[in-house]
Amino acid sequence: MAKSWVNSAERIGSDLHLDVSGPGGRRAALIGALREAVRGGRLSPGTRLPPYRSLAADLGVARNTVADAYAELVAEGWLTARQGSGTRVADRTEPLRHAGKPAVSTPPRARGPLHDLRQGTPDASSFPRAAWLASYRRAVQNAPSEAFGPGDPAGRRELREALAGYLARARGVRADPDRIVVCSGFAHALRLLFGQGGGGVLRGPAGVEAYGLGFHRGLLTAAGVRTVPLPLDEHGARVDGLGRERTVLLTPAHQFPTGGPLGPERRGAVVDWARARGAIVLEDDYDGEFRYDRRPVGALQGLDPERVVYLGSVSKSLSPAVRLGWLVLPGHLVDAVRETKGEREAWASVPEQLALADLIACGAYDRHVRRMRQRYRSRRDRLVAALAERAPHIRVSGVAAGLHAVLRLPPGTEAAAVEAATARGVALDGLAGFRHPAAEGAHGDGLVVGYATPSEHAYEAALGALCAVLPPP
Amino acid sequence: MAKSWVNSAERIGSDLHLDVSGPGGRRAALIGALREAVRGGRLSPGTRLPPYRSLAADLGVARNTVADAYAELVAEGWLTARQGSGTRVADRTEPLRHAGKPAVSTPPRARGPLHDLRQGTPDASSFPRAAWLASYRRAVQNAPSEAFGPGDPAGRRELREALAGYLARARGVRADPDRIVVCSGFAHALRLLFGQGGGGVLRGPAGVEAYGLGFHRGLLTAAGVRTVPLPLDEHGARVDGLGRERTVLLTPAHQFPTGGPLGPERRGAVVDWARARGAIVLEDDYDGEFRYDRRPVGALQGLDPERVVYLGSVSKSLSPAVRLGWLVLPGHLVDAVRETKGEREAWASVPEQLALADLIACGAYDRHVRRMRQRYRSRRDRLVAALAERAPHIRVSGVAAGLHAVLRLPPGTEAAAVEAATARGVALDGLAGFRHPAAEGAHGDGLVVGYATPSEHAYEAALGALCAVLPPP
Repeated sequence: MAKSWVNSAERIGSDLHLDVSGPGGRRAALIGALREAVRGGRLSPGTRLPPYRSLAADLGVARNTVADAYAELVAEGWLTARQGSGTRVADRTEPLRHAGKPAVSTPPRARGPLHDLRQGTPDASSFPRAAWLASYRRAVQNAPSEAFGPGDPAGRRELREALAGYLARARGVRADPDRIVVCSGFAHALRLLFGQGGGGVLRGPAGVEAYGLGFHRGLLTAAGVRTVPLPLDEHGARVDGLGRERTVLLTPAHQFPTGGPLGPERRGAVVDWARARGAIVLEDDYDGEFRYDRRPVGALQGLDPERVVYLGSVSKSLSPAVRLGWLVLPGHLVDAVRETKGEREAWASVPEQLALADLIACGAYDRHVRRMRQRYRSRRDRLVAALAERAPHIRVSGVAAGLHAVLRLPPGTEAAAVEAATARGVALDGLAGFRHPAAEGAHGDGLVVGYATPSEHAYEAALGALCAVLPPP
Repeated sequence: MAKSWVNSAERIGSDLHLDVSGPGGRRAALIGALREAVRGGRLSPGTRLPPYRSLAADLGVARNTVADAYAELVAEGWLTARQGSGTRVADRTEPLRHAGKPAVSTPPRARGPLHDLRQGTPDASSFPRAAWLASYRRAVQNAPSEAFGPGDPAGRRELREALAGYLARARGVRADPDRIVVCSGFAHALRLLFGQGGGGVLRGPAGVEAYGLGFHRGLLTAAGVRTVPLPLDEHGARVDGLGRERTVLLTPAHQFPTGGPLGPERRGAVVDWARARGAIVLEDDYDGEFRYDRRPVGALQGLDPERVVYLGSVSKSLSPAVRLGWLVLPGHLVDAVRETKGEREAWASVPEQLALADLIACGAYDRHVRRMRQRYRSRRDRLVAALAERAPHIRVSGVAAGLHAVLRLPPGTEAAAVEAATARGVALDGLAGFRHPAAEGAHGDGLVVGYATPSEHAYEAALGALCAVLPPP
């Protein structure tokens, strides 16, 4: 093992560790150590080496010893020396690859299909880079020093205040900064509420919609929470089926994935149930900002902030790459969630929390949401028009809001349609994949089309490809 | 409940929901709804209201109705109208406070003591704002669109490549981008490895140093992992005490909190143990960059990358507010950790991952580390000098590296010294607080002094306050 290491090259801004305890003199040892560092990949091609003077000082050897070692390695082809750019590791050296290591496969999402119409993602090419950068810059420049120290696990006050104002104004949420806890997204919020392997703030069993994200059901199951499917009809989840559940997870603004808001009577009924049973309603407002009608649906949370936990994030409104989400909590849950968050120490990035606060406060967040709303509405219209023209036998539903539509298919054709789409490079999901395994009755065959996912210039081609793979009348 | 909501004011960039289904005519209903929105805090003081035209269009009412409603509320004092700045919510309106809600207490860390000498935090006032912003800007401007879509749970390739180069160069880590998983910090890394409530990639029992962070031990315990304390001596942890443990968590570069590197023989011995037992060594390189001697200690991981998991983060080098950390994994653990990470979806911010990659690649990260190293070294020297002058009976240890020192105290004086310090506004920890509850024998009395925590201008006063509260000879 290495018995001695040498310190850094102070001037060029890089640290370099070398073991010079090898056999032979200092020069030979240094040559051997540098060669090994290059061969082993610790010094990668193109890396600039420290000047003689710095390395010599660090090693406590004569400057000529370093110069000689470099010259030798240049001669051997390990290094290159160019006037004005110093000594660098030669380009053709190949760092050691670990033999026998299986190549790590790129996940399918990153590789990308020809036409990506999977639900759940906003148009990544529309991220508001300039506005976000401006807010990030202001936030970092103006932040007090303590912002870069250990923080409040509940999140920055600036962001909680901005969110309280925004959610009240735009979503009808009765919010208070002291009742908001900032987190890293919806999944993180669920974990904060239910823990993992028991001991969470909330307990099950949990009612869930008969169709929903399997990922969310999986998180609940992993937390030891049993999920009970609630059937869906044209007014959304049949909340009259709730009985001894302790919580219920709903998508009231826009049922995922079938579309459509939870009916007014149901909204009242689920809150009444929660009050009567001392239960908690979890409101997943995953795409509440994107509504294309005159009469959008405000947050259920407004009906009873003491019985509803409101959950949101920037994953649909800005980007899932910015890991920020929030919980608006009933008063009696605030301390417990803050404590859990503190214990687990998974804070969201403080600079980005401050940037989002700025983005909301300066109005750029609203402007972006409105711009995207117009864009997605137009895509929705184009989808509906394309289907009317090219596949008039296909009924579309769930298109009054959100970032996806459901294309109703003739019974028994869904699996084949998804397969045909995949074969033609069109990525999308069938309805069946969202069904709770214990759900009674099925919701018919259908395709879930995420029309927000493609970039603007790729959308027309994606529409064409979609229409081409739909089953004939 | 609300039966009708109105849409947004398209022009001013803000969304506003109002319930106009109240009793009376449209005008009265609108007035009532606006008043309620202000009273309830949904419209906060200073908020600008939509222009008449926009709100009227959204509501489907005459423009005059909106104008009348605004005028009425201005008259009542709820709103103010100023030439050129539109209609706004008046400043003196008090949003509703939820009666009966206990005030959420600010956590002690945020309130802050007079002199903060607690370990674990770099100087928050030294965050390299300009360099970080420059890197963040380049990163966001140059990122491909897909960077703002769903990402690889292992982290951005750009960052993993930059880290592989940096860790090889500066810490002697044998890193490969495919073996790095980016996470949100050390605690997150531990959870990825051990899970919560069982089912982790690694299993216990876990050997831990007899003195260490209780927070880390608590994470292991929460994961269902039993911890077994290893006694400490002048060469660090007594790894010869390892037997049937499946993992061991060590701080080889600088034992936390007692200071001092793990001795060369111990380094070899713990790797031999891991090889023989098929066990895994977890190397917590929490402050490996900050070493003040000629012969710093390279990463233990270099001895056997197949038996050692190397763990690092920017919490000490940049700021704990930037939630980025990393694991360098043995080949056989890579897929399992990537899979766990994907399931739990707790990605680190992608823009900040790209910013850190840029910061490393352009040399600014090294420069910052070097600058801070010089600063902390000077603080260490000032601490040692102050004690030599004002409290020569106090021995200092663990000061060859890191961001904290241990002040050895006469037996039986630690608790009183911590109490005296607290009473005088000096926040620091006693050694006893880091002791494993099942550790045999004690390491003597001492104070753990985090000399990096204060800002530069506050350090002299903190030193003075510290010397004043030390027990007399």
